[in-house]
Amino acid sequence: MRKTPDMLPTGSTIGILGGGQLGRMLSVAASRLGFKTCIFEPGGDCPASHVANYHFQAEYDDVEALKKFAASVDVITYEFENIPTSALDILENIRPIRPGREALRVSQDRMTEKDFLTGLGLKTAPYADIPDAAALSAALDSIGAPAILKTRRFGYDGKGQARIKAASDADQALADMKGAPSILEGFVDFTSEVSIIAARGLDGSVACYDPGENVHRDGILHTTTVPATLPASARTDAVLLAAKILNALDYVGVMGVELFVTPQGLIVNEIAPRVHNSGHWTQNGCVVDQFEQHIRAVAGWPLGDGTRHADVVMENLIGDDMSRVPALAQEPGVALHLYGKAEVKAGRKMGHVNRVG
Amino acid sequence: MRKTPDMLPTGSTIGILGGGQLGRMLSVAASRLGFKTCIFEPGGDCPASHVANYHFQAEYDDVEALKKFAASVDVITYEFENIPTSALDILENIRPIRPGREALRVSQDRMTEKDFLTGLGLKTAPYADIPDAAALSAALDSIGAPAILKTRRFGYDGKGQARIKAASDADQALADMKGAPSILEGFVDFTSEVSIIAARGLDGSVACYDPGENVHRDGILHTTTVPATLPASARTDAVLLAAKILNALDYVGVMGVELFVTPQGLIVNEIAPRVHNSGHWTQNGCVVDQFEQHIRAVAGWPLGDGTRHADVVMENLIGDDMSRVPALAQEPGVALHLYGKAEVKAGRKMGHVNRVG
Repeated sequence: MRKTPDMLPTGSTIGILGGGQLGRMLSVAASRLGFKTCIFEPGGDCPASHVANYHFQAEYDDVEALKKFAASVDVITYEFENIPTSALDILENIRPIRPGREALRVSQDRMTEKDFLTGLGLKTAPYADIPDAAALSAALDSIGAPAILKTRRFGYDGKGQARIKAASDADQALADMKGAPSILEGFVDFTSEVSIIAARGLDGSVACYDPGENVHRDGILHTTTVPATLPASARTDAVLLAAKILNALDYVGVMGVELFVTPQGLIVNEIAPRVHNSGHWTQNGCVVDQFEQHIRAVAGWPLGDGTRHADVVMENLIGDDMSRVPALAQEPGVALHLYGKAEVKAGRKMGHVNRVG
Repeated sequence: MRKTPDMLPTGSTIGILGGGQLGRMLSVAASRLGFKTCIFEPGGDCPASHVANYHFQAEYDDVEALKKFAASVDVITYEFENIPTSALDILENIRPIRPGREALRVSQDRMTEKDFLTGLGLKTAPYADIPDAAALSAALDSIGAPAILKTRRFGYDGKGQARIKAASDADQALADMKGAPSILEGFVDFTSEVSIIAARGLDGSVACYDPGENVHRDGILHTTTVPATLPASARTDAVLLAAKILNALDYVGVMGVELFVTPQGLIVNEIAPRVHNSGHWTQNGCVVDQFEQHIRAVAGWPLGDGTRHADVVMENLIGDDMSRVPALAQEPGVALHLYGKAEVKAGRKMGHVNRVG
């Protein structure tokens, strides 16, 4: 364990790459600790810009803007993992980036991530690198169908994925990847999906929130429920596994770790080096939520108390779900969290509710 | 009860007069419901400016700025009661101000407020208008010492007050008022001070938070504790009394009502037509806190669920208390709320903590 570093003093400025809802909620959490926030986001009128102190509206290849942004903040973090390497090269010469480069390198590529996880002795779905049709054919022979073909990079919310129910789907699935480097993942027969939101401080201390049980719809997270229905041994396994990942990466900040629960134990689905949708329940279930925990970590503060004090069901509000807001606003025990997005689009995350107790 | 009005749609802009910590926490609460916020505040780099979308930095006698501000928002509220009448005259011609003028008229002047409260049949400390030395002498004869001489307007956190322990203190106390119209308030022998944070929606519905028990130091609120040690009958009395005040004012928004608990029943100390320091515990004790409740009311939304789910002690961080932040950040069950004020000054409210459970 490293020596406890100096805490970034209140009044300092946290730089956040990305201006979506995660950046918005990170900004609000930072304000609770007296920090200013500065977001870097190409889009205008983005969710985080409504609550951040400053907004650098520029592209990720705008070298001068990146330099000015970095020089105007005290530490840099991010709300998404697909930050161009060229931008990171510029930023990290000027200010510390937390979580660090290794976490981004590993999580930006599904193949690298799977190799990293299995290298730690953790279980994943069977997988194979798919550079071409011949590799896909060979991989389907060894892994079998059903399976899922995914782009190695830039996938989220089910995008860049094609299901292969039988070997005859292979050609179409490969065409769906549009030439992008891909990975084949075997089917996992899971009893449930859970995720664990874990945090690691600059001093090396690790804290995990209670695991949440996730239900997806159309590839997008629909609900997270705490407590998850999970045997006690699996709870312990989940915490140990998350700590192993964080320590191996010398990680600083909050990470979302998605797990499949199977009769043979926990299988890691994927990791996200950032605050995570499945951790939104912490806003109304804990004294210190995942957003503040992340800010505390990147600012070198001690991790806060993430003990769960209530049962919570988080439900995402997607697209037209916004029409339910007037009814939800009247429901006892419901906490609304809306993202201030100007335009409602099908499949777009517009907000979420936490049902407490 | 009025017909339920249309809810101000998410994405609308809430105008807030005043840019201090209350405006800051109102802005954050508004963002949770997808509202934008625009503050009007003469000072720069004020706490609310860090999290609000827009900041009109102008004086309250700047007619053009007031007009532009009002035109750029959908509804106007405020974080302090001493808004110049001339400014209100301009603003309310352009957009609704909630809570309305009557609440401001009553609460801006201690004499008017006491007359209003006693007119409702509620108990207050004995009081008398003090236009001059002769009136003070007569009032001391009837009310007796000890008593407190206060300016009728613009007092807060114990400012503009002079204690009169005996009649011989009268001249000095009057001199301390510096010629401002004043009021003499008799001493109340209370067993405790509590406050009740009450809300009234645009539809006339009323909701009260659990009463909190207050301890002051040097005239400034030190702690608020929930639950308050209060007999059940006093709890009911407090709610009925608060509802009576809100209904009489056709009030829309959150109000802080400070009460003295005495063996003869509850005595109203003062009312504040805004979110209140003694309601900060709701941030970590309820699903919907006082700040969101206020925003819901002024936006015509249904009032939210303010049920208390935890025991909380709120403690203000005043001046040098900021040096305790590193230790507080490590304490289990502690939620920090810092206001981002650049300069630490003696007696200045810099933040607060909520100790939960």
